[in-house]
Amino acid sequence: MLLGSIGNNAAIFEGKVIAKHIKSEVADEISRMKSGIGKCPRLAVVLVGDIRDSHTFIRFKLKACDQVGIETTVAQFPDKCTENELLHVVASFNDDLDAHGIIHLDEAEIINIVSLKKDVDGFHPLNMGNLAIRGRQPFFIPCAPKACIALLLRNGVEIKGKRAVILGRSKIAGLPTALLLQRHHATVSALHAYTKNPEQITSETDIVVADLGIPNMVRSNWLKQGAVVIDMGANHVKDPISQSFRVIGDVCFEEAVKVASAITPVPGGVSFILLKTHLD
Amino acid sequence: MLLGSIGNNAAIFEGKVIAKHIKSEVADEISRMKSGIGKCPRLAVVLVGDIRDSHTFIRFKLKACDQVGIETTVAQFPDKCTENELLHVVASFNDDLDAHGIIHLDEAEIINIVSLKKDVDGFHPLNMGNLAIRGRQPFFIPCAPKACIALLLRNGVEIKGKRAVILGRSKIAGLPTALLLQRHHATVSALHAYTKNPEQITSETDIVVADLGIPNMVRSNWLKQGAVVIDMGANHVKDPISQSFRVIGDVCFEEAVKVASAITPVPGGVSFILLKTHLD
Repeated sequence: MLLGSIGNNAAIFEGKVIAKHIKSEVADEISRMKSGIGKCPRLAVVLVGDIRDSHTFIRFKLKACDQVGIETTVAQFPDKCTENELLHVVASFNDDLDAHGIIHLDEAEIINIVSLKKDVDGFHPLNMGNLAIRGRQPFFIPCAPKACIALLLRNGVEIKGKRAVILGRSKIAGLPTALLLQRHHATVSALHAYTKNPEQITSETDIVVADLGIPNMVRSNWLKQGAVVIDMGANHVKDPISQSFRVIGDVCFEEAVKVASAITPVPGGVSFILLKTHLD
Repeated sequence: MLLGSIGNNAAIFEGKVIAKHIKSEVADEISRMKSGIGKCPRLAVVLVGDIRDSHTFIRFKLKACDQVGIETTVAQFPDKCTENELLHVVASFNDDLDAHGIIHLDEAEIINIVSLKKDVDGFHPLNMGNLAIRGRQPFFIPCAPKACIALLLRNGVEIKGKRAVILGRSKIAGLPTALLLQRHHATVSALHAYTKNPEQITSETDIVVADLGIPNMVRSNWLKQGAVVIDMGANHVKDPISQSFRVIGDVCFEEAVKVASAITPVPGGVSFILLKTHLD
C-alpha cells in the first residue's frame, strides 16, 4: 500500500468487501462440513425484549448466519423476565450438543455461566486472559478486534513493528483490540478519558483505532501523515435540518481522509459494531 | 515529590523500606487473625530440584513468610519426577483446607490445575483476564506489578493521567504491570522486541518500567527529564576483574540517576523479582 501525500485522499477500507470474502470462505467451510459429517454449526441467541425494537446487532448476526449456512435458535424473553429464567436457558444451551455458540446482550449476569467453549463473543475473562497471555490461545476472540485485524491484513497493512493507538478501552472493542494488536507485534498505546493531550500520541502513530463513542472526536491534527485509521465508532446523531438520525464515526472523516493513507468509512467500515461504547 | 533538574540526582526508591512497611502491616493482620479465629494462613510450595541450588526466589518467599507469621509447607521433588507426581500434589493442596495459597516454578504444566482461589501468583489466565477487564476483580495480582505500584504510590507518585511505558511483555512482570497501571488510569504503551526506536517513546514518558532482561539497556537519552524509573531487571553479569557475579538492572543506573526524578536501585528496588525475564 502506498502512503498518501499531502492533499491526496486516503484509500477507503470498505468493510463490506472484506465481509463478503469472509462470508464466502465460511459458507464454503460449512458446506464441506455438511457434506462431510452431515452437520452444521448452530448459534443460540438469548434475547430480552422485542427483537424489532432495539436489537439491530442481533438481527445483523442472524442474517449473517442465514447467509453462510449457520443455523440459529433464538430464546426470546419479555423485558420483565427473571434472572433465573435467563440462567436456566443458558444452562440448557450449555448442555445442548447441537448448540455450538451462545450470544446474548446481558453480559453482567450471563457471562459467568456461558460454557467457555460456546462463548463465541469471547467476552469471558478466561478468554480475555488467554488473549492477553502470549503462548496461550483463547477459544474465541471478540468480533470487533477480529474485524479490525481483518481490515488491516486483508488490505495489505503490515502490523508487526508498527505503532498503534487504541482510543477507548471498552471490554467489547478497545481492550481486546489492544491485546490482539499486541499479539500481532504492534507497539500499542491504550488511550482513555484520563489521557492528557491524546493528539500528541496519536499524531506519532501508524495505526489509529477509535472506540470512543464521541462523534468526530479525532480531527486531522490528531493524525500522522499516512496513518491508517480504523473507526469503530457508530454514533447516532440527529441531523439538524432533516431531524432524522444518521450514524457517524469517532473520526471526522472529511478531515482525516486528507491526512490518512487509509481509513474505514462509517457506516460501511467496522459498522457492524453497533453496540454503544464509551470513552472511559 | 519534586522533579529533578539537570545535574541533580534522583530520589532513590528503596524497595526494602517499602517491603519493611508492608511486612509489618501483614504481620499485624496475621497476628489479629490468630488471636481472633485461632488460625493463620499457610503457603504451599511445589519445588522441583534442590532448594539450595537454584531457587533463590523461593527461599526469599519462605523467609518472608516466616517473618510475617505465614506458615509454609514445601513439597520437594527430585529433578526427574514425573508430571503426574506434581499434578497429584497440587490436587492435594487444592483440597487441603489448611493450604491457602500455592506457588510453584513450573508454570506450563501446573498452572492449569491450581485452584483459582489459591493461585497467589496470579498467573492463571482467568486472574489475568479479570485484571485486564475493568469492573472485574482478580483473586490475586502477580507480585511484580503489585511491587511496582507500591513503589510508586507509597513514594507519593501519582499514576492517574500519567504516561507510562513498560519495556518487555513477560507474563510474570511486563504484561500484568501494563494491565495494573491501566487500572490506575495511566496511559500505557507496551514496548517489546519489535518496537522500532523505543527511546523515542520512552523519552516522552513520565513513568518508565523496565522488564527486559538486558543489562544497562536503558540509557540517559531514553529518559525524559524528571521521569520516574522502575527497574525490574535482575541480570547476573560477571565482573571482568574479580570474575565474581553481580546483579545489575536493565537501566544504566549511573546515567539514569542524573536525568530521572526518582529511580529504583538494583539490587534493593524491585530486586526480589529474580526470575529471569526476556525482551520478547
